[in-house]
Order: sequence, then structure tokens, then C-alpha cells
Amino acid sequence: MNGSSTTGPAEESEPTDAREEIMAATYHILCEEGYAGLTMRAIATEAGTSKSLIHYHYDTKDDLLLAFLERFLDRLDRFLAELQAETDDHEARLLAFVDRFVVESDEAERQSFWRALLELRLQAAHDEEFREQLRANNEAIREALATIIAEGIDEGAFRAVDPRATADLILDALEGARTRQATLGTDDAPLAARESVHEHVVSTLLDSGR
Amino acid sequence: MNGSSTTGPAEESEPTDAREEIMAATYHILCEEGYAGLTMRAIATEAGTSKSLIHYHYDTKDDLLLAFLERFLDRLDRFLAELQAETDDHEARLLAFVDRFVVESDEAERQSFWRALLELRLQAAHDEEFREQLRANNEAIREALATIIAEGIDEGAFRAVDPRATADLILDALEGARTRQATLGTDDAPLAARESVHEHVVSTLLDSGR
Repeated sequence: MNGSSTTGPAEESEPTDAREEIMAATYHILCEEGYAGLTMRAIATEAGTSKSLIHYHYDTKDDLLLAFLERFLDRLDRFLAELQAETDDHEARLLAFVDRFVVESDEAERQSFWRALLELRLQAAHDEEFREQLRANNEAIREALATIIAEGIDEGAFRAVDPRATADLILDALEGARTRQATLGTDDAPLAARESVHEHVVSTLLDSGR
Repeated sequence: MNGSSTTGPAEESEPTDAREEIMAATYHILCEEGYAGLTMRAIATEAGTSKSLIHYHYDTKDDLLLAFLERFLDRLDRFLAELQAETDDHEARLLAFVDRFVVESDEAERQSFWRALLELRLQAAHDEEFREQLRANNEAIREALATIIAEGIDEGAFRAVDPRATADLILDALEGARTRQATLGTDDAPLAARESVHEHVVSTLLDSGR
């Protein structure tokens, strides 16, 4: 990919790579500059390309951002497939799912990204299309965790709880802790939240489960 | 209070009322317009006064906003004193504390205010003075709940858990649910979070507690 400002057949040979680089640049700018810094110009500069090439792939910044958010659903699916392949143990799957939220949030880059995502969520509070996409992403994560819990109940590994309500409790607690970390600087919040989720939620799922 | 733009001895006879009205106007604008709409002019219009009278009481918008946040600590103290006077039952105190967060969040006005508070928190991520004040407010709430739990443990009403870690779990879950409600429109999230907190956290505090 180069900085050419022409659009046309030339780019058609490299759509996937170009899109990948645009998406990577979008992620990088959200982490570094927040939502306010996310302009088509900034993305083009970061990706080492031109605004017109970006417009060739995404009509508007909104289209680009919606595509960016949709990709997280693919990432989630890949993670779940890996988890499924990795272990048959329901508790191990549950803990790995929790850890994915916590361990990732411990990196400065992920903290910045969570902050940018909150900014986007606040912007989206009045924009139905974005809100739908953000809600779909959040729903997918919650349903995935609920499924892990439901499978554990079905196979007698977990106590019979409401899977979705339990998933919501775990994720609300972890998201609440990440929000504190990203906005108030309480750096130990996510790891402490993981401990509390283990002690108060995961351990009671196991009680009399097996 | 009137709309006069003069500052001087005339206002000195009504400082408390004027400040109350300015604070009420600030709250109202944060709910209606969010943090972005909070200008000294908007506050003056809402309070039916003048920018210069506001500047007579608060040098800058930052001073005004810091004073606004500090007032929440007074409100918290009043609530805790009421709670202390109302009941000696530790479980009742704990549930009343949880309800205060959840029931309030069910009003549209409070949802808007929580959204504005998140906006302020995101703004404050890079402003040390505001972050300190917002963190102090959040700390005070968490310490208050930890104290209720610790008193319950001391008097044998609750199982021996880490009071602050348990308070953090409860508040992270409730704040996470309120954030979902305010940004993604998942309206039932706080009430559902209350149920889950009761089932997974409060009930385990009571297990073998008494």
C-alpha cells in the first residue's frame, strides 16, 4: 500500500491488506488520541495511505467505525473457538473468559482503548445505528459467557443459576472496574475485581455443583 | 436573586441561596445537555442570574464544578446519618445502600446525570485536580459501603469477608450496569444487577453469618 491519492482498479488488487491497515490505524488512533482524534486524515496518516483510498473502502467515517466494531464480533468468535478446542473443563473456560477481560485491561494500550470505547458509547447514546452496533457487541460477549455457564450447568459442573444473569453480574463487575481504572486511575481495580468475582461468583457456581 | 450583571455588596446578603441556585442549575444542565453544554452562560441563564454573579461566587468554571462535586460528599454524609438513625439491622442498611444506587438510576434524570458524570470522568482522565475530586467521591461511597459491611461482620451479622473488596464488587457491578443503561439503553440492567447482587453477594454474606 502506498500514499497514492488515486482511487480505481489499482487498489482492487489489495483490498484486504488495505482494509486491515485502515482498521489497525483506527485502533491505534483510538488508543492514542481517543475518539475526538479519530479523523479520516489521522487514519490515513497513521496507515501511510490517503484519505481517498480510505473513502474507496469506506464511504464515510461512520461506515468505517461500524466496520471496525463489527470486527470485534469476529475476534470474539475466534476466541470462543480456541477456548472450545483448548479445554473441556467448564470452570477453566469460565476463568479463561474472565481473564481475557482482566489481563488485557492491564496493558496501558487496552486501558486507552476502553476509554475510547466509553467515549464512543457516550457519543452513541443519541445515535441509534452506533448504539445498536455497540449493544450487539456487548450482547455477544454476554451471551458467550452465558453459554459457557449454561453448558457447565447442563453437564453438572455448575450449580443451577440463571446463566445470563450470572454472566451479566460478572461482566458488569469487570466493566465497572475497567471503567474506574481507565477514568479514575485506580490501577488495581480489574485484578481486584477478578479476585472478587472468583470468590463470590465462580466459587458459588461450583458449590454443590459436582 | 435577579438578573443584574453588577457584582458587589448587593449580592453579599444572599450568598447561600445564590450558590444553591447555581448548583441546582449546574445539575440541571448536566442532565439536559451533558458536560459539553455546561458553560457559565448556560448556568447563568438556567439560574436566572448573570455570568458576573456566578463569577462573584466561583472564579472559574473549574472552581464551580469542583464545588459541585464536593457537595456530593455532604449528601452522602447526610444519607449515611439517616441510614444509621433509621435501622440497626446491618442487612437492611446494606440493602438500602444498594437500593439508593439502583432506584435513583431508574429515573431518566439520574440516567442523564450518570452519563454526564461519565463524560466528566473521561475529560478528567487527563486533569489531575478533577480526577482527584472524582476519585475522592468514588472512594467515599466505597468506604461507606465497606464500613456498613465491616460493622455487620463485627456484630456477627455477616460472614467474615474483606469489607472493601466486597463493597467494590457490589459497586463495580452496579456502576457497570448503570453505565450500560446510560450508554447502550439496556434499561433493565440496574434492577437486574440489584437482583444478582442480592443473590450472589448479599446472600453469601448472610450464609453462616448469624
